[in-house]
Amino acid sequence: MDVADQLIAIGQRFDARNWVLGTSGNFSAVVGRDPLRLAITRSGSHKGMLTREDILEYGDGRVLSGSGTSSAETLLHLEVVARRGAGSVLHTHSMWSTLLSHRYAELGGLAIKGYEMLKGLAGVTTHEHREWVPILENDQDVARLAGEAARLLAEHPDCHAFLLRRHGLYTWGATVAEAARHVEILEFLLESVARSKEAASWRS
Amino acid sequence: MDVADQLIAIGQRFDARNWVLGTSGNFSAVVGRDPLRLAITRSGSHKGMLTREDILEYGDGRVLSGSGTSSAETLLHLEVVARRGAGSVLHTHSMWSTLLSHRYAELGGLAIKGYEMLKGLAGVTTHEHREWVPILENDQDVARLAGEAARLLAEHPDCHAFLLRRHGLYTWGATVAEAARHVEILEFLLESVARSKEAASWRS
Amino acid sequence: MDVADQLIAIGQRFDARNWVLGTSGNFSAVVGRDPLRLAITRSGSHKGMLTREDILEYGDGRVLSGSGTSSAETLLHLEVVARRGAGSVLHTHSMWSTLLSHRYAELGGLAIKGYEMLKGLAGVTTHEHREWVPILENDQDVARLAGEAARLLAEHPDCHAFLLRRHGLYTWGATVAEAARHVEILEFLLESVARSKEAASWRS
Amino acid sequence: MDVADQLIAIGQRFDARNWVLGTSGNFSAVVGRDPLRLAITRSGSHKGMLTREDILEYGDGRVLSGSGTSSAETLLHLEVVARRGAGSVLHTHSMWSTLLSHRYAELGGLAIKGYEMLKGLAGVTTHEHREWVPILENDQDVARLAGEAARLLAEHPDCHAFLLRRHGLYTWGATVAEAARHVEILEFLLESVARSKEAASWRS
Repeated sequence: MDVADQLIAIGQRFDARNWVLGTSGNFSAVVGRDPLRLAITRSGSHKGMLTREDILEYGDGRVLSGSGTSSAETLLHLEVVARRGAGSVLHTHSMWSTLLSHRYAELGGLAIKGYEMLKGLAGVTTHEHREWVPILENDQDVARLAGEAARLLAEHPDCHAFLLRRHGLYTWGATVAEAARHVEILEFLLESVARSKEAASWRS
Repeated sequence: MDVADQLIAIGQRFDARNWVLGTSGNFSAVVGRDPLRLAITRSGSHKGMLTREDILEYGDGRVLSGSGTSSAETLLHLEVVARRGAGSVLHTHSMWSTLLSHRYAELGGLAIKGYEMLKGLAGVTTHEHREWVPILENDQDVARLAGEAARLLAEHPDCHAFLLRRHGLYTWGATVAEAARHVEILEFLLESVARSKEAASWRS
Repeated sequence: MDVADQLIAIGQRFDARNWVLGTSGNFSAVVGRDPLRLAITRSGSHKGMLTREDILEYGDGRVLSGSGTSSAETLLHLEVVARRGAGSVLHTHSMWSTLLSHRYAELGGLAIKGYEMLKGLAGVTTHEHREWVPILENDQDVARLAGEAARLLAEHPDCHAFLLRRHGLYTWGATVAEAARHVEILEFLLESVARSKEAASWRS
Repeated sequence: MDVADQLIAIGQRFDARNWVLGTSGNFSAVVGRDPLRLAITRSGSHKGMLTREDILEYGDGRVLSGSGTSSAETLLHLEVVARRGAGSVLHTHSMWSTLLSHRYAELGGLAIKGYEMLKGLAGVTTHEHREWVPILENDQDVARLAGEAARLLAEHPDCHAFLLRRHGLYTWGATVAEAARHVEILEFLLESVARSKEAASWRS
């Protein structure tokens, strides 16, 4: 399966889980390193109904093949690729990431600890791992937001993801499959954190 | 894909999300403007199992082609088309629209602000947008309800949708695809509002 | 589509919504009236994976065709058919019916009022309708339980459904399609009631 | 359908319900008793996208056929097979098992009583059955964890399942179909327990 087919299949999986409703979310995968070329979803495409025409090739600051505009958040994808050496970057807009990114915004992030599912994150070998998921304020100036993301990635060299406030989740991986696994793991963990907060008010 | 096939596909998507259970909901699309002709779902059809026979052509106050009766809420669709120049009107009965339409009925509506997903509404370019979703009392007299909807659309010239109390969501768009995107965006946002209210009672 | 195919399709729909997990639930449809013959699901079959072999013909107190035992709750189906003249009886085990059937058991039932979705119940023409859903204590003696159901149906001649405590929903209709619509409507309404209770504790 | 196809189909069902997100969960089935041979999922495979290549044959302490490593938790599967004579062991990572396994960890387990769905557990004939679901502390030393599981299975000779804290559910059955039914029943019951706790704080 080539990269475009992988992104199409991922879009269908995520759509079935309501992580990319409307035309939200965007996906990319590195298809060449020197110079950098990125397969990236077209702006305005529905991620649950992607076709090969919705996967553009981007490099050298412009769309190299395919028609339309690359995702408005292309700069964020480029920043993650540059800072993390990622092979794929996936961005989703789920209920729980939206909720928690606001709830914990003033603390700058949230910690996830004690879950077996953490081992689904690359390099994590124990549920005792503490994953810090930093949160950025949302901003319509994508260049500025990409700068903030760069700063945040430098500050948190071990993080596997970050949240944009009331916007969604960014995560990545060495391959498209790894990035997709990170989305699934993190969506599960974020829901776990939220439901644990709910459970904290149960009567004993 | 023609309009009937689009409405059929939308019904299957919405049904999978439980937004049109039973025979609830109704969908329309403008297929001619002068005089106005509307493709509209047949009364009593299950929106998740529509066939081409369930999409009637309506105009001049009656069903022009196809057998059966057009949706009982045809007058509401016509009012939205007339007042907004919409190319498609979609009405769903979801859990969260039902819940919030009652909860906020006495305030006459609810405001949604600060969510990136707002940018999925036509013309909205920033998460700082404040969307006011007005709420109408439900009424079995559809002519009277359509009159109330007309008044409400005039009062709120910028709104992208309205709720009927303990009944559901009405939204629209220039095209069927845009109207469907608005449903997905608004359903997401309404659930976000509801879950944020739940989260407000979490212990810190 | 014949009755067996209808029951198979309904099983798949309900299974996708987690209303018949495990081998829970059972479905029947009248295929002859004089004498009464019932198509009914085989005991122990998974309702999401029914085949034509899982639909037995039952009459005269025994399985007339097909191998295996008819649902353990066959007597309840027969009672509903006899008392209501139903053409189909459907029984599901959903989360919300389980929860509410316990919560309201001591009141003997729960009232649902004010929802547009009520109009999906046969004969209901306004959201102002008040539907009383009576609740029976669960009982492993199915003959005794069927007797209790007969008493309850006589006491509540207008009800469209009843709940068995921490067990599930029974509803019916003139046809399989109507019974299935009633399941969808009631499942929606029961979830609405439960979520409204949750919402009652939101801070304003 | 052979055992590999059964495990593949189960993976798709469970994945659709978000019980095996990421590459979580693992499944096995006994394919020979003397000496013991187990079909078991490959470590790192996505349970919703299993192919026949992901089902390895394991016996005599090693992978007998197929390439790759058997699930990291193979020892736990072997322990359950040995102690219970199970024909299949299934392990899932769901939201509710994760939540409850933490909430009730200090009590060593949780009791489930009064639900009709309990009758879906092998040998249970009444909703009045009390099922004790013991909980083990999670541990990255799988040999030690398997020892703890052996102790727990001896202590609770009637239990149909156990939870690993913030990790997931282990259950089993005489056949793959029975083990899968147990997963569905227990996932339903665990969600029921959690939602009942939520309902306990509803106003009257």
